Amino acid sequence: MLSYKAPLRDMKFLINEMFDYQKHYQTLDNGKNADAETVEMILQGFADFAENVLSPIYQPADEEGCHFNDGQVTTPKGFKEAYQQFAEGGWQGISYPEEFGGMNLPMSLNLIKSEMMGTANWPWAMYPGLSIGAVNTILQYGDATQKRIYLAKLVTGEWSGTMCLTEAGCGTDLNQMKTRATPNEDGSYTITGSKIFISAGEHDLTDNIVHIVLARLPDAPAGTKGISLFIVPKFLPTGSGEMGERNAVHCGSIEHKMGISSSATCVLNFDGATGYLLGEPNKGLKAMFTYMNTARIGTGVQGLAHMELAFQNSLPYAKERRSMRALSGTKEPNQAADAIIHHADVRRMLLTQKAFAEGARSMIYHTARYADKLAEAVVKGDEAAIKQWDDKLGFFTPIIKGFITELSIEAAKHGQQIYGGHGYIKEAGMELIARDARISTLYEGTTGVQALDLLGRKVLLQGGGKVIRDYTAGIMKWCGEYALDKEMRKYVWALTKLCAEWNMLTARLLLTARKDRDIVSAASDDFLMYSGYVMMAYHWARMAAVSFDKLKNGGEQPKEFYLAKTQTAEFYFDKILPRTSAHAESMTTPSSSMTQMQIEHFAFLD
Amino acid sequence: MLSYKAPLRDMKFLINEMFDYQKHYQTLDNGKNADAETVEMILQGFADFAENVLSPIYQPADEEGCHFNDGQVTTPKGFKEAYQQFAEGGWQGISYPEEFGGMNLPMSLNLIKSEMMGTANWPWAMYPGLSIGAVNTILQYGDATQKRIYLAKLVTGEWSGTMCLTEAGCGTDLNQMKTRATPNEDGSYTITGSKIFISAGEHDLTDNIVHIVLARLPDAPAGTKGISLFIVPKFLPTGSGEMGERNAVHCGSIEHKMGISSSATCVLNFDGATGYLLGEPNKGLKAMFTYMNTARIGTGVQGLAHMELAFQNSLPYAKERRSMRALSGTKEPNQAADAIIHHADVRRMLLTQKAFAEGARSMIYHTARYADKLAEAVVKGDEAAIKQWDDKLGFFTPIIKGFITELSIEAAKHGQQIYGGHGYIKEAGMELIARDARISTLYEGTTGVQALDLLGRKVLLQGGGKVIRDYTAGIMKWCGEYALDKEMRKYVWALTKLCAEWNMLTARLLLTARKDRDIVSAASDDFLMYSGYVMMAYHWARMAAVSFDKLKNGGEQPKEFYLAKTQTAEFYFDKILPRTSAHAESMTTPSSSMTQMQIEHFAFLD
Repeated sequence: MLSYKAPLRDMKFLINEMFDYQKHYQTLDNGKNADAETVEMILQGFADFAENVLSPIYQPADEEGCHFNDGQVTTPKGFKEAYQQFAEGGWQGISYPEEFGGMNLPMSLNLIKSEMMGTANWPWAMYPGLSIGAVNTILQYGDATQKRIYLAKLVTGEWSGTMCLTEAGCGTDLNQMKTRATPNEDGSYTITGSKIFISAGEHDLTDNIVHIVLARLPDAPAGTKGISLFIVPKFLPTGSGEMGERNAVHCGSIEHKMGISSSATCVLNFDGATGYLLGEPNKGLKAMFTYMNTARIGTGVQGLAHMELAFQNSLPYAKERRSMRALSGTKEPNQAADAIIHHADVRRMLLTQKAFAEGARSMIYHTARYADKLAEAVVKGDEAAIKQWDDKLGFFTPIIKGFITELSIEAAKHGQQIYGGHGYIKEAGMELIARDARISTLYEGTTGVQALDLLGRKVLLQGGGKVIRDYTAGIMKWCGEYALDKEMRKYVWALTKLCAEWNMLTARLLLTARKDRDIVSAASDDFLMYSGYVMMAYHWARMAAVSFDKLKNGGEQPKEFYLAKTQTAEFYFDKILPRTSAHAESMTTPSSSMTQMQIEHFAFLD
Repeated sequence: MLSYKAPLRDMKFLINEMFDYQKHYQTLDNGKNADAETVEMILQGFADFAENVLSPIYQPADEEGCHFNDGQVTTPKGFKEAYQQFAEGGWQGISYPEEFGGMNLPMSLNLIKSEMMGTANWPWAMYPGLSIGAVNTILQYGDATQKRIYLAKLVTGEWSGTMCLTEAGCGTDLNQMKTRATPNEDGSYTITGSKIFISAGEHDLTDNIVHIVLARLPDAPAGTKGISLFIVPKFLPTGSGEMGERNAVHCGSIEHKMGISSSATCVLNFDGATGYLLGEPNKGLKAMFTYMNTARIGTGVQGLAHMELAFQNSLPYAKERRSMRALSGTKEPNQAADAIIHHADVRRMLLTQKAFAEGARSMIYHTARYADKLAEAVVKGDEAAIKQWDDKLGFFTPIIKGFITELSIEAAKHGQQIYGGHGYIKEAGMELIARDARISTLYEGTTGVQALDLLGRKVLLQGGGKVIRDYTAGIMKWCGEYALDKEMRKYVWALTKLCAEWNMLTARLLLTARKDRDIVSAASDDFLMYSGYVMMAYHWARMAAVSFDKLKNGGEQPKEFYLAKTQTAEFYFDKILPRTSAHAESMTTPSSSMTQMQIEHFAFLD
């Protein structure tokens, strides 16, 4: 049976000792609301809720799944009660303006909240999580009336929301989208079409559900330049903003999936449903791109969640399960065999989970500060600032989404390996983590989409590698400070070498791409993973530097926390970072080794 | 919906053009039974059965699962009918002596048979597969009466068999085994204990089930030197060998698992059941080791099965699904978007699946010739020859089991990525391949167990690296023949370099291990994967050499098959082989980066 304990010690290490959130909060308008005491209260509150309310219903809910009956979806036992408690606590809106019922705290605290809820019970956390997508979109693009009607209900959690993009033939490629919107005389639109893979598209947690729908106007240009956004509520609001008439949007079925079975994935049929234009006509795709940074970082948080849960539940098993003797000699002579944590190979898997989880958390908590800035710009409607922080986030987003979710699959896999045969049995829960983690590299853009976004758009197209030059320049500067430090020099020299290589590889790909456009796709996955491993190495080096300092000059209790940090950093550099060699070698391969085979020669099965 | 087509063209390439099975069969007593015509008949027969009988019931059976009711297990719809057809065709016994009702064909054909059945429907194939374990054990250790009574029924498939090793607290570490056997006056034994994770432990495919059970005699030495083997049939045989009285062995429950849900995984309770000693007292573990080579190569075949099935079902989707345009320019101007097979990153995933499947098949078909020799030695009871071929298999076994099954998880993962969101939906079937593949690195010894067996036992302990020196010497000799070949030199020089490195790494680990025993565990996973990638590279180089020759000097139709082989070899060397760099770097890391952390410092959650 899986259990969850919020890793508050590690969270506070990042918030207070690595990134000094209090100092950062002083640069935000709403930062004054997030004094140390409030942050502590928020952390404790969500830890309690996640540990005691969400975690116990995670595994049973997977067994039960969602129920679909004639258009109605019933969530598993306990989901509705947990949601009511969550909404009543006002926790949906912690990072949204007070005028809509929120607490007006920085967005970073919402990310940390979603980490705790998601680690305890990812499928449950998807319901309020999808609402956040709708809130962000209406906050940025809604007119005053739309904000007044929808935001108050969404921010308090009384209503929930969805994002309706995907159709049967089109996911990544929204060019092919077919859902249509025709204008009505009263200024509303009639929406006709069918959307698939809509998470939280129908459920019993809230009375009303507000769908944000991508559709085409009659006179819209072809392709993605002809996509507009619409608000399509399940129940149309009355003039006073209460629930009115049932709208013509219905759930046709829910998907049977590998995992996240307690999160309803819906086919939604819009049969002449009433919708309201959100933002400008034909500018829907641009709006989606802003939304996507947040959604994709949220999926990176999912990766972190599965890493942490896999680690937390592998560790006690590795301490209890006994098998054979350690190679260096018997460790527990009074037992029939040594606990498997005494085997170096088992430690390798545990430390990989730990290094991934803590490294990913550091990457996300670092980036969350830019999310704070972006959220502030959105609330202010400051277009220049929105662009500035969106661009800043744009580099980190595909790495956090693509790299961290890929690693979460590995972390879950190690959990199953540590459990041996029991890792395959439902009761132990490790297989559930593996199944739930598996979606994270598929939705919100597959790893391939993230990889192409990073290398193709963010690195090569925008500024010809400038983002890599800038980012590595920062690392190099930091490394310079530690070049002669006895404890740190091993890490900073390794990092320095990688920064040089990262730039060299980028330049080489830039040159190759001039003649060979396919190289951008061919090299993208290697480039994504390479970038992720180097970025995580930088975080581990920084965590090690802080920890060495605290070991010398004093820090929080227990001090052994810092010792373990430095040891995990050493493990990461020794056992994980060598993977960059493989990716560096592989990414410079000519694209022809992928493109030369004729399609009909892939298989000879007749 | 998944479908399967036996890749006969590739199989025959290996059988006829790579390994010349006909020449090899001339060295076997039963080789004369396996002329080219018979082999063709066997291939076609199993292809038909696998494609038309087993494949269609694979996905529905997963949905249905096994039914447990009061000690009885009912297999999913169609399983029993398929088994009856299989048994009536005499197909269980193709590689066993005619005196027991077999066809007396070489064991390699049984492996090829199990590949086809397993690719079409792995969970179904486990039922006859486990029987083979019982047959092999009785063939090697049974007395004349035991052979007469049990082998005829098992070889014809009228009865089935199991292997009962694991108990609740002990899997890998059989030291901790507790099941007891006390002698009765009539020469039989009373077996008491409980076994878990017994595949095919109870089912409705055969009337009787013959369990091979590990248990301790009353006077047995402690640990693994006190384990004996027993035959414990579900129904005791009468004097004439027919089914008699019900024995006191019952199925207590079946496991709920991540996958292979149509293969019954049973708790078996032996409540004073009657058993018969098989082989010598206290020599059970040795017997298990012989059995394990076969079982582990069988699990390697499972890895191949999932690779092939993932590839076969990814390919048509990649040709049909349209998204975006290829980076090098529009490929299908008349379509709304290009098929995703035009994206280099999608080709990377498809070619990885293809390179893995065909590379693994080559590794297995190569090793199957040693299995032929071992099987012959067992039938003859030639102890020296048994040891010789068992030792020969012993080097390849952990690589085939450990490396190929790990790669099968990756191949299945690529399948899901190619399908995007649909890769997570049950209907498409890719998630089923991923779930079923997931067990392969856990049972029959986890990857960690294979890795330790390879590095600790086979490489370092037995002859101080001799097996690597011998194996690489063979590769080097072969490479020498192609050193100046225009097409092949790229591959043979890369391989030559790796052979040198493989020896150097082995020598370095041997030296380190003298002072630091933990290094053997710490480095084992890297060493296993490194060895696998180099071995597979050798197979790809050899396949390329044969294919270049056929392209020049003529071969079978279609000739494009050989072109695709050389292109896949190029892909493997360019995009997969660089992984050896990461493993080489990582394996020489001191074990301290894994062992230094105190157990209580792994997490600070209080």
